[in-house]
Amino acid sequence: MTEYQEKYDKYLAEFESTLNNFCDGICCKPEKLAESLKYSLQSGGKRLRPILMLAVGELLGVDSKIIKNYALALELIHTYSLIHDDLPEMDNDDYRRGRLTNHKVFGAGNAVLAGDGLMNTAYSLLFGECFKGNDYVSAAKFICDCAGIDGMIAGQSADLEHENDLTVNENVLNFIYENKTAKLLIAAVVVPSILCGGKYYSELKTFGSVLGNLFQLTDDILDVEGNFDQLGKSIGKDSAEGKYTGVRLYGLDGCKVRADMLADKCTGILEKFDGDTSFLKDLVFFVRQRIY
Amino acid sequence: MTEYQEKYDKYLAEFESTLNNFCDGICCKPEKLAESLKYSLQSGGKRLRPILMLAVGELLGVDSKIIKNYALALELIHTYSLIHDDLPEMDNDDYRRGRLTNHKVFGAGNAVLAGDGLMNTAYSLLFGECFKGNDYVSAAKFICDCAGIDGMIAGQSADLEHENDLTVNENVLNFIYENKTAKLLIAAVVVPSILCGGKYYSELKTFGSVLGNLFQLTDDILDVEGNFDQLGKSIGKDSAEGKYTGVRLYGLDGCKVRADMLADKCTGILEKFDGDTSFLKDLVFFVRQRIY
Repeated sequence: MTEYQEKYDKYLAEFESTLNNFCDGICCKPEKLAESLKYSLQSGGKRLRPILMLAVGELLGVDSKIIKNYALALELIHTYSLIHDDLPEMDNDDYRRGRLTNHKVFGAGNAVLAGDGLMNTAYSLLFGECFKGNDYVSAAKFICDCAGIDGMIAGQSADLEHENDLTVNENVLNFIYENKTAKLLIAAVVVPSILCGGKYYSELKTFGSVLGNLFQLTDDILDVEGNFDQLGKSIGKDSAEGKYTGVRLYGLDGCKVRADMLADKCTGILEKFDGDTSFLKDLVFFVRQRIY
Repeated sequence: MTEYQEKYDKYLAEFESTLNNFCDGICCKPEKLAESLKYSLQSGGKRLRPILMLAVGELLGVDSKIIKNYALALELIHTYSLIHDDLPEMDNDDYRRGRLTNHKVFGAGNAVLAGDGLMNTAYSLLFGECFKGNDYVSAAKFICDCAGIDGMIAGQSADLEHENDLTVNENVLNFIYENKTAKLLIAAVVVPSILCGGKYYSELKTFGSVLGNLFQLTDDILDVEGNFDQLGKSIGKDSAEGKYTGVRLYGLDGCKVRADMLADKCTGILEKFDGDTSFLKDLVFFVRQRIY
């Protein structure tokens, strides 16, 4: 096992333990509501956002105990956004992470509520952190704003608006990539910085943005080249639905060249840091090469 | 004009001014997202929750400037819940406050995002308040928890689960009333108390709960007896859809007797307060007698 994989597994185990404890505590009624939240939360996934947050926290010397509820809240927000994105009136996806999507199992009405419930619970967790002081409030508000109408939700809205829009416009694509995908990755890496007084704040913000753009670009590549068994979701949907993707704008080869450039930019930013950034560099490499 | 109406109009004008300023500041992209948020926020309505909050604030001597973002956030949360409730997969309503529902104007996908955006923006506003100190955090978290999976969302989920359930069970009905409707009214009246160190906390919590139950009971009565022009939404839908209502459990006359009892209980609680509670008493009377 490589050193990268060992560290990844360590962060993953730490996060899954936090998440499972959290899920054990969900005992709301009706039972179907509780079940539907847990179904989507405990469906595996790469846990990229919490793992990024834990890794950057370790790099900056922030105790993982301080970070864990932020990592949890961010994964809850990410999960709610997937549930709503998969709805028939949105992307209409039947599979996610190799399992039926939330609305296919619990019905669309319940899936709307499961998404709402996850978002609300994320913020309840973060309000709980706010008693600890203003840095904690800043970090919570930062996540909220990254996820909001000038962040992720704006990106989802632009994505929806440009479905079946046959023109291609780089500004629109950049807006979608930056907001729909990169903003939550920015939150993942900037929160540890806020929690220790702003160390490497602007470097981390740029790193999150570039990594997010890379992640979405490889997502678009995988929608063409990936396979269902590894990816756990339908392939070829984007082009079938006339979605605004990098492949449409740059072509498949153009996307790969661009992805290499973004990966180089990410590792270049990491050169500016004191401390051991080898895990984060390998993580950038993984995002570039990923098949799932 | 009665004294009650004058005061109501004063609170309403104050709130609408706050809301309109807030809406003027919404300039997110895509424009359709911004428009869809404003469409539902600026569709009138009774503004019961913010007016209750302002009135209780005045009774307890809390400056309305301190309260206004909480009132705004609460109305945003209420509005998001209506947008999601009206969706085809939920209550499937075409009209709300006499206008087409959000998804009829902007499409279901955008309506999901508009609701998500309003909830997220409500919490961003409340995180902004959290810098002021722990009472402000407590008040924000209180709203969040009232709206969450042990509050409003649980009530919506139970409401959905018991659609077309031909049995009637008072415990289930109480659960739906208390969570779907009463919890946000509890938030409206308890937040001013939290912001001034807990004055009349438990009395206000009970008052909000009873008033919320009364409000939902009169809602069920109006679904039978109301008319579309005054109510601004479809009539007779609950029974057509086999919804779990007070009318099904108690009968129409039984509901009215019960509503009178709940109204009496509300005014009884107000007797315990120092200060002028005449506006709140009249508001209870309005909720009992309302035709919209």
